[in-house]
Order: sequence, then structure tokens, then C-alpha cells
Amino acid sequence: MSSSVDNKEMNMIHRFAGDLPRHPRQINGLFEADAEIIKVSDDPPEYLILKTDGIHEEITKKLYDDPYLIGWMAITAPLSDIAATGATPTGVLLSLVMMQHCNTDWLRRFKSGLNDACRAYDTYVLGGDTSYDDRFSVSVTAVATLKSLLPMMRRGIKPGHYLYASGPLGLGNVYAYAKYFDTSVKVEYQPMAKLAESMTIRQFATACMDTSDGLFPALAVLSELNNVGFNLCPLENCLHEKSSKIANPGRLPAWMLLAGPHGEYELIFTIPGHLKNEFEQSCRNKNWQPLYLGEVISEKKLAFSSESIQVQCNPSTIANLYFEADGNITTYFELLTRQHKTWTKTENL
Amino acid sequence: MSSSVDNKEMNMIHRFAGDLPRHPRQINGLFEADAEIIKVSDDPPEYLILKTDGIHEEITKKLYDDPYLIGWMAITAPLSDIAATGATPTGVLLSLVMMQHCNTDWLRRFKSGLNDACRAYDTYVLGGDTSYDDRFSVSVTAVATLKSLLPMMRRGIKPGHYLYASGPLGLGNVYAYAKYFDTSVKVEYQPMAKLAESMTIRQFATACMDTSDGLFPALAVLSELNNVGFNLCPLENCLHEKSSKIANPGRLPAWMLLAGPHGEYELIFTIPGHLKNEFEQSCRNKNWQPLYLGEVISEKKLAFSSESIQVQCNPSTIANLYFEADGNITTYFELLTRQHKTWTKTENL
Repeated sequence: MSSSVDNKEMNMIHRFAGDLPRHPRQINGLFEADAEIIKVSDDPPEYLILKTDGIHEEITKKLYDDPYLIGWMAITAPLSDIAATGATPTGVLLSLVMMQHCNTDWLRRFKSGLNDACRAYDTYVLGGDTSYDDRFSVSVTAVATLKSLLPMMRRGIKPGHYLYASGPLGLGNVYAYAKYFDTSVKVEYQPMAKLAESMTIRQFATACMDTSDGLFPALAVLSELNNVGFNLCPLENCLHEKSSKIANPGRLPAWMLLAGPHGEYELIFTIPGHLKNEFEQSCRNKNWQPLYLGEVISEKKLAFSSESIQVQCNPSTIANLYFEADGNITTYFELLTRQHKTWTKTENL
Repeated sequence: MSSSVDNKEMNMIHRFAGDLPRHPRQINGLFEADAEIIKVSDDPPEYLILKTDGIHEEITKKLYDDPYLIGWMAITAPLSDIAATGATPTGVLLSLVMMQHCNTDWLRRFKSGLNDACRAYDTYVLGGDTSYDDRFSVSVTAVATLKSLLPMMRRGIKPGHYLYASGPLGLGNVYAYAKYFDTSVKVEYQPMAKLAESMTIRQFATACMDTSDGLFPALAVLSELNNVGFNLCPLENCLHEKSSKIANPGRLPAWMLLAGPHGEYELIFTIPGHLKNEFEQSCRNKNWQPLYLGEVISEKKLAFSSESIQVQCNPSTIANLYFEADGNITTYFELLTRQHKTWTKTENL
């Protein structure tokens, strides 16, 4: 990646990690995959795939307050990145910061979330480390392997490819909106890492990434890495059914629920045109239906409609708003609203 | 391990992790090795070895305030555990919690510590995750492999084996004492993970563990796991030369500098009597000299002399004091002093 791109999060990470030496057998550059990929054997090819992901701001910002959900998400978050490479997890290591005298019931429910997630993904806690402080946080490293197949990465997208998601989108932001701005609405949120779907996707996709940070932030990264844009379907058709709880007329436009940064842990991926039918048939054979999102275009822009507005913008415009808000939720929502007004006015000219 | 043992830290970890299901190919039980060991291939045997270790309390308790040292230790701590198994590191993943607007110079020096450590250990940062909060912390997962040799673990110690350390001990606690109680003394502290020495040790040792938590806490764990005790050499002969800065008469007795919990990242290990000469010759061939610490005994006790006192105690007595002090440094030092008075009085009877 060049030293400066449109995406503010990528710039920030690049400033920290851009000059660290890379392992000679690591096949992904910075940003190029959801997880780190080391080729450990050549013949047959074998890859060790690793990902560290922390649940931190979700706790400090009180987005997650149910200890069961914290445990579930601690495992789901890194495994969703593993799924985006097409690998099979071996296990996870926990890094915990706990209160010295932690509430026993709280801890029991946190462990229950961890355990249920490990069972759901057929994986194991291999070990961990515990520190003590006055508040809780957890970071998890997932370890996985992939044999005889190339891991999926974020590069490889060409104009004309079709863009899909593993399922309907927006639930993460619906959950966050209800939590912060409308506590009268209760939104159930317990996403599954798409490890099973990934087994089909990896046979066809040219690139794959999870939507843990929301759809638009993911598209901004894919656009930057592949120097392409996306022409999306009407966004109200891409939303999770539960989003109707808050995304009905007069409340939130569809695009805002896809703006992130609290995602739904689906996979988005691109399929070459000539494999479209075979891919969709393979999904049906496995009893799931991918969501068609639109088409890859050569111009580095996002084109979409959301209810009555038609938008064409820089792929990083929406993703950058959260960073411009400095992570402050109220400011962020104001920036989203202001952006929406700008687009509505442009429409009305 | 049974549900209750003498060691308080082991009890606490057992309460959290004792009932988590284990990976069917993980060969170490809880506490049985410094790192997690997964047998990934049978013929030839191949092991994936993993360790997560965090630098957290060292920062909050201001034991580490130099960002270079924090970076260095973040890499050294998990690699020291890898060294205790005899494996060779592939790389590390970082989990960082940073201030949103972190001081650039601070960050540069932290990265410099990370980079220098990676170079010193011929390893790489493979990836990581960053969260934001109002204070800094870092946790690192090291990934390593071992082929055709059995990894070293903490079990396998029998009475009559000889106990060694990879080098002189006490520097970690000397550093901590100077930092907290005598800032007029400046102690340089930048330990190396003993990856090189480990290549010799693994050919002879029946068990191995690092002293990241100090000598006595390590001996307490080895005693518990192997149901043995240790008859140690006069402790003043085991101290690092820099400990003379504070361990001279009238200041601190040798045993306190080995009580932990801030260790020196040496390896301690046991060698069967018939391999002693061959082992020591192999070390000389590699231009290093192990430190003979004493002998394994069948009775589960620690026997040692420190300056004028002769002590026989439960192996967990000393290790437990830090937990009895609830991690409070001042209280801990009072408990150490009280313990010393008890032993001195017993001597004088």
C-alpha cells in the first residue's frame, strides 16, 4: 500500500505497522487478508493462519454489557476473520484482564458464552493469560490451518466480478442504534462466524473479507486494495429482517445501518461472472442462500441507492465518518445525519 | 491437578480454566507446560506451540515506564515461555490498547523495543489488533514449532535429579525493589529469552520452566506438579552480580530477591544424575555456563539457606505471599519482612 490512502483507519494502522519487517513466508501484506497467513510447507502447500482480535471498546462504550455476549463475541470475532480466509480453526488463546475480585455470576456467564461459542465452532480454548485491573477486557488469538487450497485474501477483485454477502446485513448497527439511541427496542444479537459457508465460498471467490466493521468500511478497504469501485443493489433490499424494527420510514435510512462500524460478521466476497451459476447452485446444495450485493466497477467509487436517494461517493467517505467523530457515538450519529442531509439536498436540486 | 493445592495462583487459574474442554491433540494439561502444545502431526512428530502473555500490571503499577522496555518485554515474555519448551518461534501477534492520541515519540520508542527484540530473537511481528482507551497495554501471542523432538514440559522431575538455572537469578526483583523502594539505585534490566540455551537444555532436561514470575513461585509450581521438594544451594551464591547493588548486608536477604513475582526470565530445569557431566560439557561447548541450584528431594518442601538463616518450608509459602498481599507492593514487602523475622527468630531459639 502507498503511504497515504483515502481510508483513515488504514492510514493509522500503516503508520504503526507499515515499517515492521515481514516474515519471509508470510504471504499477505498489511491489510491484504482478514488474518495473517504463513506458508509453512510447500509440497503439499500448507498454511498456518492466525488472528488476534480484542473486545475492548465494545465493553468500555457499553455496547456489550451482557457477559455471555462478551464471551461469545470474543471467540466469534477472530474466527470470523479465519472464516474469511477459508481456513479451519484449531483453537484459541485468551488474554484476559479481570477485576481482582470479579463477580462470580458474571464470570460464570462470560465463560458460558466462551464455551457455547467454542462448541458451536467445534474449537477449543488452548490456553491464555490473565492480568488484573479495575475493568474487564478480553483479546483472543485464533489459530487455524489450511491445506492444499489457497487461502482467500482481500486482493484479486476485478471489474465485472459480482459482489455477494453470506447473508443479510445491518444487524450489528441495528443492535448498536437500539442500545445507544432507542432502548425501547430490544434487538437480539449473537452472530455466528461463517466458517461453514466459507467452505463453499473458498471454491469460487476471488477475494473475501468479513463485515465485522460494517459493510461500508469493508468496501472502502476492498476498493483501496483493488483499485475498484462498487455499484450496489438498492440497500433496503440488503438489510437483515430485524432492521425493520428501526429502519422503517421516518427513522433510519438503509445506508446508515450499513455504515458501521459495528458489523454483523457476515462475509462479503466476489465471484467471477462465469462462476455465478455454479456458485449459487453449490450454495443451494448446502442449504444456504448468499445475498447478491452488486457489481464491481473500474471507477474507484461507491454507487448506491437508499430509499429515495441516489449516491455516488468516494468509497472511504462513509467509512471515515467514525474516525472524524473520534469514536464519539453522539458526534458520529450527527455526522451520519449531516451526510444524509447533504445527499438529500443534492437529490433535491 | 486436584481441585485444591497449596499454591494460590494455581488455585485461582484452576477455578477459571479447570473445566474448559481441552483440544484432543493438546498434550499438556493445565499448568503442565510454560506454553500450549498441540501435536499437529504424528509421523514424524510435529508440535505447534503457542503462548499468550500480557504486559499489563507492570505498566499500571509503573514497574515499566520506559516504552522501549515495554516493547522489549512484550516480545521477551512469551518467547521465554516458548524457550522453556525447546521450540523455535515463527512469529508473534500483538494485541494493543493505545491512547487515541498517543505521544509520537513514546510510540516510536515502544516500536523500537519491539523491533530490537524481534531482531534479537530472529522473529517477526505477523499481525495484531489495536483498540483505544485512556491507557496503554499490550499482550503478545507467540507461535512456534518443534519437529522430531519432544517438547519440554514441567512434569518429569524425580528425586535425585539436579536442579539448574540458565544463569544467575534475582535481577527482576532487584530491578523492582530499586524502582519501588530505592530510586537512588539504577538497575539496568533488559532480559533475553533463553532461546539459544534452550537448544542445549532440551537434549538433557526432564522438565523446564522459566522464572518470569521469580524463582520461588516457579519452584512452588514444579513442586506441586511433580510432588517433590528441593534442597537448594546457599542462595547468596545464586544471585545476579547486579544484586550486590542492593543485597549487601543490612539491606535485603538473598531469599527475598528470589521470592518474585518479577522474575529474570532465566530457565530452570532438572537433569538426571547420569547426564550431569555430559550436559555441563555441552554447555561449555556452546560457551555458556548453567548455574547449579541444588537437588530434587522426595519430600514436598523447600530447604535453603540465605545468609545466616536456614529454612525448611512448604514450597508455596513464599510464592503465596504476593497473593496474600492482594498484589499491593507495600503490603507485599511487609509480608516478606515479617516472614524473614519469623525465620530469624526460629533460628535464634
